[in-house]
Amino acid sequence: LIILLHLDAGPAERAAVRAALQRLGLAIEEARLGERTTFWVSGADVPAESLARLPGVERVVPVGSRSPLVEATRVPGGRPVSVGGATFGGGHVAVIAGPCTVEEPGALRDVARFVARAGAAALRGGVFKARTSPHAYQGGGTSALRELHAAAREVGLPCFTELTDPRQVAEVAEWADGLQIGARHMQNVPLLVEAARTGKPVLLKRHMSADVDEWLLAVEYMLKTGNERIILCERGLRSAERHVRYLLDVGVVPWLKQRIGLPVIVDPSHSAGDWSLVAPLARAAIAAGADGLIVEVHHRPETTRCDAQQALPFNDFARLVQDVRALAALDGRGLSGAPAREPPPLQAAAGA
Amino acid sequence: LIILLHLDAGPAERAAVRAALQRLGLAIEEARLGERTTFWVSGADVPAESLARLPGVERVVPVGSRSPLVEATRVPGGRPVSVGGATFGGGHVAVIAGPCTVEEPGALRDVARFVARAGAAALRGGVFKARTSPHAYQGGGTSALRELHAAAREVGLPCFTELTDPRQVAEVAEWADGLQIGARHMQNVPLLVEAARTGKPVLLKRHMSADVDEWLLAVEYMLKTGNERIILCERGLRSAERHVRYLLDVGVVPWLKQRIGLPVIVDPSHSAGDWSLVAPLARAAIAAGADGLIVEVHHRPETTRCDAQQALPFNDFARLVQDVRALAALDGRGLSGAPAREPPPLQAAAGA
Amino acid sequence: LIILLHLDAGPAERAAVRAALQRLGLAIEEARLGERTTFWVSGADVPAESLARLPGVERVVPVGSRSPLVEATRVPGGRPVSVGGATFGGGHVAVIAGPCTVEEPGALRDVARFVARAGAAALRGGVFKARTSPHAYQGGGTSALRELHAAAREVGLPCFTELTDPRQVAEVAEWADGLQIGARHMQNVPLLVEAARTGKPVLLKRHMSADVDEWLLAVEYMLKTGNERIILCERGLRSAERHVRYLLDVGVVPWLKQRIGLPVIVDPSHSAGDWSLVAPLARAAIAAGADGLIVEVHHRPETTRCDAQQALPFNDFARLVQDVRALAALDGRGLSGAPAREPPPLQAAAGA
Amino acid sequence: LIILLHLDAGPAERAAVRAALQRLGLAIEEARLGERTTFWVSGADVPAESLARLPGVERVVPVGSRSPLVEATRVPGGRPVSVGGATFGGGHVAVIAGPCTVEEPGALRDVARFVARAGAAALRGGVFKARTSPHAYQGGGTSALRELHAAAREVGLPCFTELTDPRQVAEVAEWADGLQIGARHMQNVPLLVEAARTGKPVLLKRHMSADVDEWLLAVEYMLKTGNERIILCERGLRSAERHVRYLLDVGVVPWLKQRIGLPVIVDPSHSAGDWSLVAPLARAAIAAGADGLIVEVHHRPETTRCDAQQALPFNDFARLVQDVRALAALDGRGLSGAPAREPPPLQAAAGA
Repeated sequence: LIILLHLDAGPAERAAVRAALQRLGLAIEEARLGERTTFWVSGADVPAESLARLPGVERVVPVGSRSPLVEATRVPGGRPVSVGGATFGGGHVAVIAGPCTVEEPGALRDVARFVARAGAAALRGGVFKARTSPHAYQGGGTSALRELHAAAREVGLPCFTELTDPRQVAEVAEWADGLQIGARHMQNVPLLVEAARTGKPVLLKRHMSADVDEWLLAVEYMLKTGNERIILCERGLRSAERHVRYLLDVGVVPWLKQRIGLPVIVDPSHSAGDWSLVAPLARAAIAAGADGLIVEVHHRPETTRCDAQQALPFNDFARLVQDVRALAALDGRGLSGAPAREPPPLQAAAGA
Repeated sequence: LIILLHLDAGPAERAAVRAALQRLGLAIEEARLGERTTFWVSGADVPAESLARLPGVERVVPVGSRSPLVEATRVPGGRPVSVGGATFGGGHVAVIAGPCTVEEPGALRDVARFVARAGAAALRGGVFKARTSPHAYQGGGTSALRELHAAAREVGLPCFTELTDPRQVAEVAEWADGLQIGARHMQNVPLLVEAARTGKPVLLKRHMSADVDEWLLAVEYMLKTGNERIILCERGLRSAERHVRYLLDVGVVPWLKQRIGLPVIVDPSHSAGDWSLVAPLARAAIAAGADGLIVEVHHRPETTRCDAQQALPFNDFARLVQDVRALAALDGRGLSGAPAREPPPLQAAAGA
Repeated sequence: LIILLHLDAGPAERAAVRAALQRLGLAIEEARLGERTTFWVSGADVPAESLARLPGVERVVPVGSRSPLVEATRVPGGRPVSVGGATFGGGHVAVIAGPCTVEEPGALRDVARFVARAGAAALRGGVFKARTSPHAYQGGGTSALRELHAAAREVGLPCFTELTDPRQVAEVAEWADGLQIGARHMQNVPLLVEAARTGKPVLLKRHMSADVDEWLLAVEYMLKTGNERIILCERGLRSAERHVRYLLDVGVVPWLKQRIGLPVIVDPSHSAGDWSLVAPLARAAIAAGADGLIVEVHHRPETTRCDAQQALPFNDFARLVQDVRALAALDGRGLSGAPAREPPPLQAAAGA
Repeated sequence: LIILLHLDAGPAERAAVRAALQRLGLAIEEARLGERTTFWVSGADVPAESLARLPGVERVVPVGSRSPLVEATRVPGGRPVSVGGATFGGGHVAVIAGPCTVEEPGALRDVARFVARAGAAALRGGVFKARTSPHAYQGGGTSALRELHAAAREVGLPCFTELTDPRQVAEVAEWADGLQIGARHMQNVPLLVEAARTGKPVLLKRHMSADVDEWLLAVEYMLKTGNERIILCERGLRSAERHVRYLLDVGVVPWLKQRIGLPVIVDPSHSAGDWSLVAPLARAAIAAGADGLIVEVHHRPETTRCDAQQALPFNDFARLVQDVRALAALDGRGLSGAPAREPPPLQAAAGA
């Protein structure tokens, strides 16, 4: 980093700063810039905040990345992540779809069959829910986890589910193909580390108020375990606006694609908070370069116990996948895991 | 609106609320909902905040729109706005492009020629700038306004420029085809009203912290003058994020398209604040249903005195227009004012 | 809750809504309000979002609290929480103070002695740190926990420390008098529940982007375990502003004091992010009615490995406690656990 | 400013940057910092954004203030502003109070008499309102302005009122002692300049989403006219929170007091949006060092046509002024323009 002294810092202050840096064992180099003294400081784990407090210091300018492992993923071709037949990145766009929550096995199997035929590359379903209220439905737990696994296998898709407790990791990793860490747990370091240690692909949502630096540092914690199969997922930011539930930061997609090699997908359902806005947000995400989507789909949204407002009905989902395919094709990308043919009319869809 | 009394509001409070409503000359109707007393109140200009302060009142629930004139624009086919050959809305996507600021006549004419050939439907250029600092360049004023007009006419495009003072309106309306009101002036009511009274098309940007309700009420002020040629422009919201300058609220585009008939366009340049993010944001906007774009383009961005960081170089702009045409075609829309053929290689572009 | 149908909802829609409500087993009552049909719906766990999706429904208005256990704490005199000699609430203002992190035992004992004499009611110190970066110092762990305990006992104060993992709870509860849950873990439900189950006082910081409803629902999770010794701590909200690190929501203090009986304290250190703003923010908090403070204090802030920028030097802390005493006295409150006499000049302070 | 080149910038890029800086006529100095080349650039009006776009440049670090005129107000003793008998700053705390809007002359005179006796130093009242909706009450205009003047003179107070249009300035300056510019017009440069040119004291509210830099630059525009009688007023920031209307940035008060010499006051009424939170926010502001307050007071808040929710009833206002006096005394400040004695019981107050 670079330390700029105040214009009026005298020789005594200069000497004191130099001495403090030497005490910390840092490599330093002094230079004059205009009428100002500056120090160039290098070394691991430099306490920038402490240095900013030395008398005479005007500003400390950090140079270089705080998340070097993330930066190192930026290799030619990137670091696409595959889960079963679903590939995220490297020219492949993959759609994860399914109900918010695994409720009844029958309904889950209907959704699984539908989304598979419509072109989804993976099935999602919540079993350990991170609910805001203790009085809300908390999820189906272990038995729901096995049902999710069974429904996914039946239609040949991999499945993703969310974790909220480091003590659940072993069990979930046994039944799920991809581990999902929700926005509210983005900085739950013990959970991040346990999940990454399984070696399974981990989908990390961005917290609704996290800046990109914090998000990448959470990824950095996981990369440090040696697991490089990390998928980043933007799901919208909290704002003063009320017309959408969370403001989708669509610009973060190209910003990240310019800087890192890991896949970046978007969750339009939680961002919209309203099913009628899910498809336009999803299209915007793909047009901005996202490597995939995670979408809530439900056969009868008005009967679900969780996030009904945002679940996409069957026919809308089928249309969305076609749009995604067309948008991806515009810049030479292909839909991962999707059948070449049009999704056939299903009995399930007829009732939607 | 609906007034809900507290569960434990007694007969005296009920009578007092009823009396207060009657004193205000409002039509009221009382009903019991569960164990609660409610009043249904109608009439023009009901002081909801005062009513909320009456003893015994738990909550006042507004029902119905605060901007009925805006709502009335939602007619079949919408209310597309045409400015010269540029049509915004009704299945037409139009791109306004040009330099941030009109600086030298020669450079302006180069930009005008280039954007016209590349497929822009209108020329933009700032002459009265709304700069944050009094020490920054304040724009070329009256003479720059005439140069903008001349450059636009030479290439057969209409031109847009920004207003910041109600006392400028008459002069600007004489030379510009479309009047632009910048984000910082979105609630400058005297300016809104003067601009609308000219009868010219007005492009109203959303303030970087305005909620949709405030934005639509600013439009309402203009519709009240009888001018219906209003174009709304989303340009990003202030947030804690620093990777983009303003967070583009891409979801507001479909939200508005579902509710109002006026055209909605997007300014990706001010949102991105960095030219390398302009094209992905622009594509996202069109994919989400925007009726057009307003984009800053410059021949030699590194020499401009204003917003250099976000100006798109010529070749990137030409490529962006092609992307916009392809995206618009996906849902059956066409590029307004754009030539059918590919933009020919220009001498200007060669130097870019 | 109350369901308002659209003005133009017909008899078929009305019947369908009624049927849907009956299928869900909810108690309903229908009433006309003006020209609109409304339903009053009661019952536990009503799926408001699903109901909002029924055809013909314009809006669902929730009535009543989402966190009834929190609301029930609003009893005459409130629910002050005592930890050792420190009492938060019920007319007592208590100050928790200490270093960000427990680093060396000697320095910790110096800080402990100083803050105790200056009037602090409890000692704080981090041992399991929730750091944003995996490359930053992660805390001293188990041995630091015992040193914290020893230093606190030596000066007769209770001690608080932060938890980040449900698997740490048993050990920390053995050595700490108060358990602290940091902002980033406010919605880490497994951690909340484990911490509350110990029966120890829990200090719950508000997440930097949590709204009050989410914060109170996190408290609700803890109250549900039967533990009522919960202290709420406001520590600032993320915003676009950069002059403070987090925007202190000083208004939430009186808002909460009007509605709940649990103590509400403020952390001015993390909000300010700069030591020179800590005292004014702390004074503002007490003037607004806060029941206490948690403040970072350090003997030699420029040498600490964590949050140096915000640690208050000894003499500034001593002055702050005097200000707090004077402010609390203005509305008849007293400083908890503080000696009546002025803090004597310490050798430690002399060097600050 | 300082330009840092990329670590891998070669001699050609270095030469190109140097050449570009020379072409712009800037004084430059080159230095190596560690393995990096840096340039120190000085000169007026340096186009930092353009420079950031030169190939090879990693970052441009601005050094020095963007608002030098504001910075120059930081002189010993500061620059207190006096309006009639009201002094803001320099150890004096002044309270401006009055109705949101001047409605009926009789009510206005009642409020004026009451606030004068209670200890207010100036009367406020809106006559040209900046309303969000064209359907809301727009203020009493010219005749209300004269009534405000008359009511203020009758009780011996100066009066403040808001401007929204540069064309109103001359008339308002004739009748008002202090000109107020509302948050929504903070960047309405033509209005700022016209108001400042009158030489009258101008109270400038901060926009609800303005960062401090933008606010100070708006002040800079006014100082540039030669008028130094500027009072800054913090009134809360837009946020996702809903318990207060705008989040009061109480930390900006000490931050500004450390850096500039102009008085800084707080508007607790618009921040709170609810009268029951006005007094605690006002106390917090004074405890944090604010030089005054502007407070909405109304005899019968439930009958007013504007902002009823936030107007303080008479007795609450009288109590607040006493609190302000006690808080100011704690750090040796005095209430400006306030009588030494307790406000006598008024007939008006009796009815409140």
